[in-house]
Amino acid sequence: MELLHLNKAFTLIEPGPVVLVSTYDGRKNNVMTISWTMVTDFTPTFALTTGPWNSSFRALCETRECVIALPTVDMIDTVVGVGTCSGADTDKFAKFGLTPMPGRQVRAPLIRECLANIECKVIDLIGQHNIVVLQGVAAWIDPARAERRTLHAVGDGTFVVDGERIDRAQAMRAKLPDLD
Amino acid sequence: MELLHLNKAFTLIEPGPVVLVSTYDGRKNNVMTISWTMVTDFTPTFALTTGPWNSSFRALCETRECVIALPTVDMIDTVVGVGTCSGADTDKFAKFGLTPMPGRQVRAPLIRECLANIECKVIDLIGQHNIVVLQGVAAWIDPARAERRTLHAVGDGTFVVDGERIDRAQAMRAKLPDLD
Repeated sequence: MELLHLNKAFTLIEPGPVVLVSTYDGRKNNVMTISWTMVTDFTPTFALTTGPWNSSFRALCETRECVIALPTVDMIDTVVGVGTCSGADTDKFAKFGLTPMPGRQVRAPLIRECLANIECKVIDLIGQHNIVVLQGVAAWIDPARAERRTLHAVGDGTFVVDGERIDRAQAMRAKLPDLD
Repeated sequence: MELLHLNKAFTLIEPGPVVLVSTYDGRKNNVMTISWTMVTDFTPTFALTTGPWNSSFRALCETRECVIALPTVDMIDTVVGVGTCSGADTDKFAKFGLTPMPGRQVRAPLIRECLANIECKVIDLIGQHNIVVLQGVAAWIDPARAERRTLHAVGDGTFVVDGERIDRAQAMRAKLPDLD
């Protein structure tokens, strides 16, 4: 993993990929699959929706830290597997062959197998809507990875894979943040 | 457009497509391009991030209504065009050849050219984070439309088009809501 400039980190989440979110509760690592995320500003901040039905939720609230990791299409069965078992009775890193790596700003682990990782601190919990607001504090990307296509959960058990990419940067120039 | 059962409406937004959001301020229709959205529950509720920098924002706050419309890849220049001009000085429906259609529950217009439309009521405004929480109250889909691939904004001026679809419904069965 190489550091990615923080001002580019929102471009990992803006396309709406399913993500893995890791936590560390002081004793063990855990990871959950999350599809309900959005960017909330370019600094970057993010929102995700989760709640006490996820066993990672307590660690997220108590440590106020997590890592958003970006799996690719070759990891689909990890994404599904992580999302259909519980950290309450399973070491998901061991079960799915995920390799925890230390970050710089948070104690929640990066996931080596993922395309990218964003270290985050919880800046707000909006309990009424189960929305967690996160500040990205460091970002990492694996420049050597061949497979870079992410997955989009539909919610009916199917996933859409990234297809072709269309460039409209010229037309949008006035509205784009400076990513240099 | 045909009515789509509301319990399926979240599957339109969960994959993270760029959307058009229409409003009606009592005098005129307006529409904005939004990429920062997420599902917040299956009923369905949604969150989106916007603020006073969008000229639709006042209508959204005052009428507490909007329609989330789902454009497809053939509409990319409409998506970019709507996102790079302002309703303050432009009739965007006229400029981009969009056809407003009446919904059932809200006065904001459906967009005929889109694949799907979700009528929404604003249920909360979280000003500190520019998050608007919406309750979907009716949903529509065009079953006759040939092009059904949506777009995912990356945020750097490029867009990723929906590619192949992978089915993992069997493995996820225990976690899926009842969509019948």
